[in-house]
Amino acid sequence: MTSKPHVLLLTPGPTEVPPEVLAVMAEPVIYHRSKAFNAVLEEVGTQLKKVFRTRGEVILLTASGTGGMEAAVANTLSPGDTAVVGVNGRFGERFVEIGEAFDVRVIPLRAARGRAVPPDAYAEALRTHPETRAVFTTLCDTSTGVLSDVRGIGRIVSSTPSLLVVDGISSIGAVPFEMDGWSVDLAIIGSQKALMLPPGLAFVGVSAKAWARIEATRPRSFYFDLRRARVAAAKSDTPFTPALTLVLGLRESVRILLRDGLEAAWERNARLARGARAALQALGLALFALDPADCLTAAWMPPGLDSSQLIAAVRDRHQVLIANGQDELKGKIFRIAHMGCIDAEHTLSGLTAIETELGLMGWRRAAGSARQAFLAAY
Amino acid sequence: MTSKPHVLLLTPGPTEVPPEVLAVMAEPVIYHRSKAFNAVLEEVGTQLKKVFRTRGEVILLTASGTGGMEAAVANTLSPGDTAVVGVNGRFGERFVEIGEAFDVRVIPLRAARGRAVPPDAYAEALRTHPETRAVFTTLCDTSTGVLSDVRGIGRIVSSTPSLLVVDGISSIGAVPFEMDGWSVDLAIIGSQKALMLPPGLAFVGVSAKAWARIEATRPRSFYFDLRRARVAAAKSDTPFTPALTLVLGLRESVRILLRDGLEAAWERNARLARGARAALQALGLALFALDPADCLTAAWMPPGLDSSQLIAAVRDRHQVLIANGQDELKGKIFRIAHMGCIDAEHTLSGLTAIETELGLMGWRRAAGSARQAFLAAY
Repeated sequence: MTSKPHVLLLTPGPTEVPPEVLAVMAEPVIYHRSKAFNAVLEEVGTQLKKVFRTRGEVILLTASGTGGMEAAVANTLSPGDTAVVGVNGRFGERFVEIGEAFDVRVIPLRAARGRAVPPDAYAEALRTHPETRAVFTTLCDTSTGVLSDVRGIGRIVSSTPSLLVVDGISSIGAVPFEMDGWSVDLAIIGSQKALMLPPGLAFVGVSAKAWARIEATRPRSFYFDLRRARVAAAKSDTPFTPALTLVLGLRESVRILLRDGLEAAWERNARLARGARAALQALGLALFALDPADCLTAAWMPPGLDSSQLIAAVRDRHQVLIANGQDELKGKIFRIAHMGCIDAEHTLSGLTAIETELGLMGWRRAAGSARQAFLAAY
Repeated sequence: MTSKPHVLLLTPGPTEVPPEVLAVMAEPVIYHRSKAFNAVLEEVGTQLKKVFRTRGEVILLTASGTGGMEAAVANTLSPGDTAVVGVNGRFGERFVEIGEAFDVRVIPLRAARGRAVPPDAYAEALRTHPETRAVFTTLCDTSTGVLSDVRGIGRIVSSTPSLLVVDGISSIGAVPFEMDGWSVDLAIIGSQKALMLPPGLAFVGVSAKAWARIEATRPRSFYFDLRRARVAAAKSDTPFTPALTLVLGLRESVRILLRDGLEAAWERNARLARGARAALQALGLALFALDPADCLTAAWMPPGLDSSQLIAAVRDRHQVLIANGQDELKGKIFRIAHMGCIDAEHTLSGLTAIETELGLMGWRRAAGSARQAFLAAY
């Protein structure tokens, strides 16, 4: 592997990991039941609150982001409970599936393609189903690049007994999010997105309203029991051996993220997204998301051309990896991330590679325009 | 952290990670939905079968070992099902707790202190409870260093409809284990033990008898759904983003483990265990486990002396970390690992440090004898 040139990851997770974070994770392993590691957990616990924008607790789980989603369901809902799930793409569907696996009565609200389910639709669902115990939404659905109006949804849910659960796995830390300010009760982040780490950790922010529910609910998982995790976290510990090299890397990566302030990261990603959208439109491509998030941009391929071919060419000839569409969108769209340590130069590398390879595939609508359009909008 | 000298880990997980494995994990991150990563998953899948000694499938989970234990329960047992759980220490109790969390009717068989529950006790429990759907045991309980006679238990369980589930989290790869040869249906390994990796991955070996049960059982987890994992594994993939840097490290560490053959590792650890037991006895200490495993040795402190003090002194003055007892054994025993890349020199460093510090604490039963006794027995 060392003999190959590094392929720059513009995929919406995993994202590039800064070299200083990689270096920390390569140090000899330390023991997790130690004062030194307790201090690391304490520091990252405090720092993560700043990322979630919450005064509440943040629970660390050794799992993929989906494990954090399962924890949110297994700790707050009992069999037969009603949950409203907004679906803006594949990851909204995942909440539907997890709910069903846990015998929850799921009311799915499915958005039109490229759109987010509007707050009004949540309000109507809550009027029709006043027994709703939890509302699930996705801040940015990574499969589509669609952004939810979580602030608007929070205004509606906060006046009801229902909890508001937000999948922010790929987006919290990358785009504006205010856990407390928007009345979010449970929010989830994955390590391999805005936090610039390899995958393997999930973080769950929990509000006071959520803790009250959790304490009154029989958890349907032992491994993901948030009460148990909370007891351990109060002692800067974890109930089970955590992925400790990733936790050590996390301390470093969150320091980097917060060094210039979270708003600086949001602003940088917003500029990259503006630039990318302008460049792709200058190339004559249609954007997938009509309610777009700033942590990734998804675009349709020109008619008759296959994104799998484009992605392979960009990877093999330019050493830049962009992501394909998922499921029925595979081959039809491609996706570029704006998060973590991705900067303008990285993004331009990706965009000009796309331009070149689209040209070689016969699409020459506006050759040479991507860079100019990016720089003008950025 | 870089300014401090490295503390050698003789803890029974996490264990020392070889430098070449650390180096692989520090390489820039790659994308997990790629042919290159599929090839890694395929290779480690094949290699892990050799570690489990099975022709069956091995499922990789991004979780601590406890997540693997939960997967075994959540996929094979339904509410009200009966399970027999052999308890040789804290980790046997964990299966009791997980079973109860999943509404399983648990029949616990608790061993006398330092002892393993004998196969006869399992046989009797199965006669009394012929409705038993699963038998749980721990190959080596890390809290006590006690070894189960899994071969003997397998002979009994294999003739019944019950599954045999073995927690080998800290021991498979370190001591003899034959998944197929001993008729084991589900077995679990954690990454941070014999496999010489940081924590964050669990591996579950699954027999044909277990798959038949799993296919007929409604899983009570989405994240740990083994059927879903099996479908993905058939394509050398995972259902959710895996802890991919750990998987890359795994390829390297399993290569190291299998380079000289698994039997060589078993034999090396057995010799280290023999040496450690002899040395500690030469110091006048009593061993905790009367049915001892060869992957770690636990010993009682001399009367009136505290193992917490000994462990701190050994760590601070000798840069060697040994483990304390857990729960009610904290302060009363200490534990030394024999697994992974721990060799005779490491073990002797630990033992002579213990001898020195015990002497300074006033225990001079047989000063100067640890090295000699180790070398004679090793």
